[in-house]
Amino acid sequence: MAVKAQVLYDFIAEPGNNELTVKEGETVTITNQNIGGGWIEAQNSRGDVGLVPEDYIELSQQFPAFPAAGTTAPTPNVAHVPAPDLSIFDAYAPPSAPAQNQASNGNDPWSVWNTDPSGGSNNNWASNPEGTQTGKSAADPWSSQGHPQAYQGPGAEDDEWDDEWDDMKSTGGYTESESGDGGAMQRGGAHATSMKISLNKFPGFSKSGPELYLLCKQLPKGKDKLPIYVGEVGPVWAYPEAQLDCVVADPKKGSKMYGLKSYIEYQITPNTTNRPVNHRYKHFDWLYERLLDKFGSAIPIPSLPDKQVTGRFEEEFIKMRMERLQGWMTRMCRHPVVSGSDVFQTFLTYKDEKDWKMGKRKAEKDETVGVMIFSTIEPEASDLDPVEVEQKCEQFSRFTKAMDDGVKEILTVGHEHWKRCTGPLPKEYQRIGKAFQNLSSVFTSSGYQGEATLTDAMTAAGKTYEEIAQMVAEQPKKDLHFLMETNNEYKGLLGCFPDTIGVHKAAIDKVKEADKLVAASKITPQDKVTMAKRVSTMSYTLQAEMNHFHSNRIYDYNRVMQLYLEEQVKFYETIAEKLRQAHGQFTTM
Amino acid sequence: MAVKAQVLYDFIAEPGNNELTVKEGETVTITNQNIGGGWIEAQNSRGDVGLVPEDYIELSQQFPAFPAAGTTAPTPNVAHVPAPDLSIFDAYAPPSAPAQNQASNGNDPWSVWNTDPSGGSNNNWASNPEGTQTGKSAADPWSSQGHPQAYQGPGAEDDEWDDEWDDMKSTGGYTESESGDGGAMQRGGAHATSMKISLNKFPGFSKSGPELYLLCKQLPKGKDKLPIYVGEVGPVWAYPEAQLDCVVADPKKGSKMYGLKSYIEYQITPNTTNRPVNHRYKHFDWLYERLLDKFGSAIPIPSLPDKQVTGRFEEEFIKMRMERLQGWMTRMCRHPVVSGSDVFQTFLTYKDEKDWKMGKRKAEKDETVGVMIFSTIEPEASDLDPVEVEQKCEQFSRFTKAMDDGVKEILTVGHEHWKRCTGPLPKEYQRIGKAFQNLSSVFTSSGYQGEATLTDAMTAAGKTYEEIAQMVAEQPKKDLHFLMETNNEYKGLLGCFPDTIGVHKAAIDKVKEADKLVAASKITPQDKVTMAKRVSTMSYTLQAEMNHFHSNRIYDYNRVMQLYLEEQVKFYETIAEKLRQAHGQFTTM
Repeated sequence: MAVKAQVLYDFIAEPGNNELTVKEGETVTITNQNIGGGWIEAQNSRGDVGLVPEDYIELSQQFPAFPAAGTTAPTPNVAHVPAPDLSIFDAYAPPSAPAQNQASNGNDPWSVWNTDPSGGSNNNWASNPEGTQTGKSAADPWSSQGHPQAYQGPGAEDDEWDDEWDDMKSTGGYTESESGDGGAMQRGGAHATSMKISLNKFPGFSKSGPELYLLCKQLPKGKDKLPIYVGEVGPVWAYPEAQLDCVVADPKKGSKMYGLKSYIEYQITPNTTNRPVNHRYKHFDWLYERLLDKFGSAIPIPSLPDKQVTGRFEEEFIKMRMERLQGWMTRMCRHPVVSGSDVFQTFLTYKDEKDWKMGKRKAEKDETVGVMIFSTIEPEASDLDPVEVEQKCEQFSRFTKAMDDGVKEILTVGHEHWKRCTGPLPKEYQRIGKAFQNLSSVFTSSGYQGEATLTDAMTAAGKTYEEIAQMVAEQPKKDLHFLMETNNEYKGLLGCFPDTIGVHKAAIDKVKEADKLVAASKITPQDKVTMAKRVSTMSYTLQAEMNHFHSNRIYDYNRVMQLYLEEQVKFYETIAEKLRQAHGQFTTM
Repeated sequence: MAVKAQVLYDFIAEPGNNELTVKEGETVTITNQNIGGGWIEAQNSRGDVGLVPEDYIELSQQFPAFPAAGTTAPTPNVAHVPAPDLSIFDAYAPPSAPAQNQASNGNDPWSVWNTDPSGGSNNNWASNPEGTQTGKSAADPWSSQGHPQAYQGPGAEDDEWDDEWDDMKSTGGYTESESGDGGAMQRGGAHATSMKISLNKFPGFSKSGPELYLLCKQLPKGKDKLPIYVGEVGPVWAYPEAQLDCVVADPKKGSKMYGLKSYIEYQITPNTTNRPVNHRYKHFDWLYERLLDKFGSAIPIPSLPDKQVTGRFEEEFIKMRMERLQGWMTRMCRHPVVSGSDVFQTFLTYKDEKDWKMGKRKAEKDETVGVMIFSTIEPEASDLDPVEVEQKCEQFSRFTKAMDDGVKEILTVGHEHWKRCTGPLPKEYQRIGKAFQNLSSVFTSSGYQGEATLTDAMTAAGKTYEEIAQMVAEQPKKDLHFLMETNNEYKGLLGCFPDTIGVHKAAIDKVKEADKLVAASKITPQDKVTMAKRVSTMSYTLQAEMNHFHSNRIYDYNRVMQLYLEEQVKFYETIAEKLRQAHGQFTTM
């Protein structure tokens, strides 16, 4: 039967990937729902058929693909609907999915502050009524559609799709212990925004934020306290002597059900134990969800690279994903709070299957999630004045917003440069090289004696320009790639700040309301004092986190800029040298 | 009144030059015929108005601009119609005009041989039924429309237009002595093809070629003989010990009629006398016509650069024209026969106005023009077998044709490269530079201490890429320009060979017919022997000329390739150095 669907967001097809360009509001006919990898095959009114990301369209029909899915049919906007099979969609949604989920909350992730200094980019968001980042992400060249190597077609991800799919079948739904789906339920909420879950448990201020913490009568005592010291740069986390680090390597294709279903298993080796542990993508995803639930209100937890990473060929896809999983793990390891947490340690150092399952169960039972993380934070400094708290918060919001624009600009420019360097430019150098060689071979046919010296040199010059064409086409992989990767990572990281900062903004508003609340005897005068103290603790947390962010940012950009320029220097020096040799072949007169 | 015109050839407008793109067969309305510079303002059916080369359209009306033109109204295809005002059109016709004039003879300039080895380019001509080069020229990027600096609009050439125009007025028509128009009459014919003139005087073989020489009863005796020796490369001209050379410099704007009409006067200083003489463009043009008439059947005389050269601004235009006049003069000086001729010597060394006018008169009276030039040539070697003559001729035809294709390929590729280097590429480097600087200034706003080291370095890196953008945009003027100029010069030179080779082909055909002609007693058996002897002389001439061409070609391409590569090396080394300095600004960690 012809299933119709409504296009939610513009999507530009990547040439050669069997994708279909669709416009927001357009109606398409679903021709194949069983593509997988977060994709659906659709046909537009002009009869063109191609792949479209599931999350970009809204089906007017249930998925025949999921007879067992039960009462709530999973629509592409999965984030709204916690359901057993969510994980499938989540794990393989296109890059823009998380942003889109944020968007689906209906508030512009960057609109927490009415006063936005950077006008230009402000318009970007303004021109985006739903405030969804999807529009931007979809247009972002470094997102999967844009990445020169990018590919979201079925092939690349089939194995993982099968993997998850297979899990559902094999576990016949899900059990608390082994399936990622238990996580998925919270994850659905978590994505909507990591705070919502816990708040919904809290009566009264239904539409508000961090009251759960601000007004919590009895904060958990003792264990797992997170101190904040005052360093020379201001509030800082407590950093371990030895920096945790790990190596993600050796991806192995595993299989189950007599090889019917396959999956990729990665080997992660922490520098602490030096003992490798194996994890599949779904375990990384589980870890991400735990970290998001537990720390998301205080610490930006970038979503898993997988959401961006796809390769044109399976090897390339696995290599690229591993490279980005490594980047993600490294960033998590660098964070003193995350790397020190039980859940992270369990992930890195579990001894055996039993140990792992216990750790999982424990982590999933953890109550100190969402805003309650602030209850574990202990600043050594004295409380801050609410005005200062608000100023700091506004400053960080402005900075992260501005940096988000700057990073996206580099990604856009970089992607255009990538396309030029791998497309028209080498073609042109090749044509120059060919033109020299063609003329040279005409000269050879002259029959005039003493021709050879010139023609040999001209042919060599022509070949040199063909070599240069080759070099130009391969250069981006050597330098631009890392510049893009780093900025892409920061784009993901910066995309988390609106939520994190949103919690703080909400808390500050609450404190501002405190007097009214007291008057309306919704809270006691004592509560008001407590709120002020706790919002100060939140501010120290945010400042410590920003200082952590800044020091990492300076390190990362210093490193990547050096690497980029180093490679660029080599590149131009090599070209100059090749041309010098070609020049040497001509006889000086 | 609305004058309609038929478009004869496709013409692609150069952006920013008020030009109008027109298609062959299209009908346009003439909105202004008094533009000058070989241009007419026209309006197409869509109402767009712009300039179109006169020679590209066929008017269905007389020129109101020339009431005095008399019975034969000059149509854009001026070459057919020798008329006093021809020189105006001729001298300022678009680059393709001469080629087109050849075309208007109705025979493909390259089709002298049915067997054309180079299939690809053969198709080019095949797809060109009129055999006109105009189609190609119009598409050739280095022709005026294509040249990045090119401009055929009225402004640039007004002064010269006025100049010629003024001459006509001032001399009230023309006098044999001072006006270039006397020349123009022959020139009109000369352009149609330099042989026609003399042949038409000769009864009998009306549609044929070089009989005037082949069957001439009494060859002029003594003076001005041109010997051909046999060197190690084969037949060669007699070269002078000292190579003639001259410097074209110091263009001065002169004026007449109380400054109402202006003209440019160039100073030409030969290395023989070291005494400068002054000439206006019209004198160069006169010289060109004399050389074409006298040597055109034996020696390719490239048309004056002016037909290609136009600049966006008057200074640029004058500079560019002078550069190309210098190139043209240098080439003529290098040719032993041309440089030794009376007319050329007169041009370079006349003592005073009286001397110049006498020389002019003498040259215009010269009877040894067209094919009769062969009557002055004396090869030292023994007569060649007609079969060998034909083989040589075919070989030269193939080579010049193939080289013409090779040269045009370089011009096409080079022009595209020029456009990229002056257009999108620098823009991209600039955007990269800006993106780095923008992110750097965001970083500066972080308020985090120890930020400066990174931001200073990033800003410097950004500025470096802006400098690179500048370098990229300016580079073509430093290297590609000369590569293009040389190939452009050779394109012009190669465009002359079809006519020259055509004469030889015609002569060979005549010799083949000789027996029939004897039978039909159109010629005597003795005539037949004479013909064979003379066609051998023609062949020695062609071989000497080809050897001259080859040695010059090898010298020119060796020189220009070296210059190009030298500049390219400098270019890439400078970029590498700039980037190395930018890299040095980052703190190594």
